[in-house]
Amino acid sequence: MKIFTFWRSLATYRVRMALNLKGMKPEEITVDLFAGHQMKPEFAAVNPMKAIPVLIDDDGTTLHQSMAIMEYLDEKYPIPPLMPRDPAGRARVRALSMMTVADAHPLVVPRIRSDLASRFGASPEQVTKWAQHWLGSGLDAYEAMLSRDKATGDYCHGDKITLADICLVSHCVGIRFFEGTYDHHPTVKRIVDLCLADEAIARAHPLKQPGAPKPA
Amino acid sequence: MKIFTFWRSLATYRVRMALNLKGMKPEEITVDLFAGHQMKPEFAAVNPMKAIPVLIDDDGTTLHQSMAIMEYLDEKYPIPPLMPRDPAGRARVRALSMMTVADAHPLVVPRIRSDLASRFGASPEQVTKWAQHWLGSGLDAYEAMLSRDKATGDYCHGDKITLADICLVSHCVGIRFFEGTYDHHPTVKRIVDLCLADEAIARAHPLKQPGAPKPA
Repeated sequence: MKIFTFWRSLATYRVRMALNLKGMKPEEITVDLFAGHQMKPEFAAVNPMKAIPVLIDDDGTTLHQSMAIMEYLDEKYPIPPLMPRDPAGRARVRALSMMTVADAHPLVVPRIRSDLASRFGASPEQVTKWAQHWLGSGLDAYEAMLSRDKATGDYCHGDKITLADICLVSHCVGIRFFEGTYDHHPTVKRIVDLCLADEAIARAHPLKQPGAPKPA
Repeated sequence: MKIFTFWRSLATYRVRMALNLKGMKPEEITVDLFAGHQMKPEFAAVNPMKAIPVLIDDDGTTLHQSMAIMEYLDEKYPIPPLMPRDPAGRARVRALSMMTVADAHPLVVPRIRSDLASRFGASPEQVTKWAQHWLGSGLDAYEAMLSRDKATGDYCHGDKITLADICLVSHCVGIRFFEGTYDHHPTVKRIVDLCLADEAIARAHPLKQPGAPKPA
């Protein structure tokens, strides 16, 4: 199994958490997003979306899109499960996951940040405020949903880590990259801090990956 | 079963196609997105994301996020199936779906279009170009993926309609709302035109819903 990865990619971070939780360690191939290597023809041949992560399973199956990859991993390598078994619970976990994957994260990826600068003349400060705004709106919605629903447990859905926790962790670690915080969202903070204390999740942190900047 | 809906919402359109294909007809409750009714406190109590669709199943289960709702419908009401059965096929269908749901569509929803205007002073023409650009990039990626992969059949994945087709149709009908076209993407066009000839899909079209503008 191989994964195309980059330390700073939040989508890759999600898949890395899932792999770690399942005890899997694919070979890593770095695609330097900051240097634009995802645009190279040889990578576009792997993924025409020019995005990571891409996972290649041992039988050659090539997978992209973090949510699709994580659901695949959970179907093919079901221990430990990262999804509940009942349709309503699965829908809740997927919906919570999508609040990051389909609502907030797409707005702050590198191609959007650079497009805001070139198309609308956005300054770096304006781009940071844009990212803070959308990730912050997502946090408000997470807090409202998680705090009011009795299906919330130690984690987003009951007392086991699911894909919803993985997505929420990527959201909250992501907001720190844009000088934001999740400290003022108490239910979110309780869950994310518990997740980050898990060894498999802690080890997946972007700043612990090859190529990441060293702490000052 | 009840659905909170609006004729122009592409996410609701996706769920409506899935419901029609499964022969289900929930009671419809209109949330006028153009009038900002999704921001009203009584709707925010239903969905703190202030977004539609929201589906309420007969047992009171409240669901949001188009992809999560469609997967739920397919798990709970499996005939006809809208997902393949093998993990690799399911991952491919999900990844193709996410190209709309998680890559392109989040960039062109009303809250983003109005934020571009207020935050960066984008003119209506610039907002239209923004939408054309991101939906167009998505079409290029779809064409590259669908044309090269032998898993593509009459439809996106083999010879049956799946969630990938539903998402692609919403993408292509969506680009027309922004004065764009999918006519120059031959594999996409072949598949979407075949889908639009399906009675259940045709009936779900935004312009056929209550409140939609009448043809001139």
